[in-house]
Amino acid sequence: MKKSYTTNLYIALVHYPVVNKNGKIIASAVTNLDLHDISRSARTYGVRAFYVVTPLSDQKELVEKIVLHWLEGPGARYNPKRREALELISIKDSLDEVIEHVRENTGDFPKTVVTSAGHSPRNISFKRFGEMLQDGTLYLLILGTGWGLSENFMAEADYVLNPILGNTDYNHLAVRSAAAVILDRLFGKRE
Amino acid sequence: MKKSYTTNLYIALVHYPVVNKNGKIIASAVTNLDLHDISRSARTYGVRAFYVVTPLSDQKELVEKIVLHWLEGPGARYNPKRREALELISIKDSLDEVIEHVRENTGDFPKTVVTSAGHSPRNISFKRFGEMLQDGTLYLLILGTGWGLSENFMAEADYVLNPILGNTDYNHLAVRSAAAVILDRLFGKRE
Repeated sequence: MKKSYTTNLYIALVHYPVVNKNGKIIASAVTNLDLHDISRSARTYGVRAFYVVTPLSDQKELVEKIVLHWLEGPGARYNPKRREALELISIKDSLDEVIEHVRENTGDFPKTVVTSAGHSPRNISFKRFGEMLQDGTLYLLILGTGWGLSENFMAEADYVLNPILGNTDYNHLAVRSAAAVILDRLFGKRE
Repeated sequence: MKKSYTTNLYIALVHYPVVNKNGKIIASAVTNLDLHDISRSARTYGVRAFYVVTPLSDQKELVEKIVLHWLEGPGARYNPKRREALELISIKDSLDEVIEHVRENTGDFPKTVVTSAGHSPRNISFKRFGEMLQDGTLYLLILGTGWGLSENFMAEADYVLNPILGNTDYNHLAVRSAAAVILDRLFGKRE
């Protein structure tokens, strides 16, 4: 099979450990359209793989069921384009498993990049990240669900990507929208 | 109330007339997450209003029910940020009604801009459209659901926005993702 990726980027969508509205650490539920939208964006922008991270066995079964419907079930005949996107999905228990999976497949550990509304010394701009992605290093972009990734989790990442700024004081994009905008800023061809 | 918009752009999400997989003209069903995701993107990027267009009365009732839940129902207390986004939504029967609504509120008819995978003499680049939005003219960006806007409908628009190119030969973003990417290309602050 022809390789579908054109970049050195992996994406992980994390459902644990994330925080809820009150800052408590929870495992969030998987959302069907997160799988569809983010895999379609990942495929459009040449991402290597899209990892869905949850330790809950019923949630892992749900993801498997959705993916198989479009890869091998009625969905594959109904919409082959959807298959090309959803085949990027791998389900993992934890971020450690994701990183180990990349290492097994490539021999390299990816550098980790989280997204955040705040600023820190580890922050990098979209422009800088775009340049870093050109030098052969593998990167794993980590997106949180719920009200975002837990603080401890964020502290362990190698880099923090600057927040997406629109042009108002409102900054509450859906994770599906944020994923698309980040990929477009890194890889999109503007014309 | 402080005005929330910072641009001269309106968005319309059209559920009729659109085409299905086989090119037949249909009225598509409203998707709950289209309302949430596109209104959050619209609010983040300072869009003036987000019109949801469908002639079907049960679909209009569904949209009203969802919007009211977040504007005045339990959702308003649970997540006030969601209210700020969903209050941008207006439900209309047709694109003519949308255009008339803009005229009633502003005294001006907006120019219409559709999105398409193809190229035509009416095509404009993202850069050009961004410049056009600075001169005081009002614009209405029209997004199709299903397999896209009908051909007759497209032919009547003032402008056709260039397709979003990623960096592969795959180009099948969700309409929710496409809306976010278009707004970010037009108005996003990259840093």
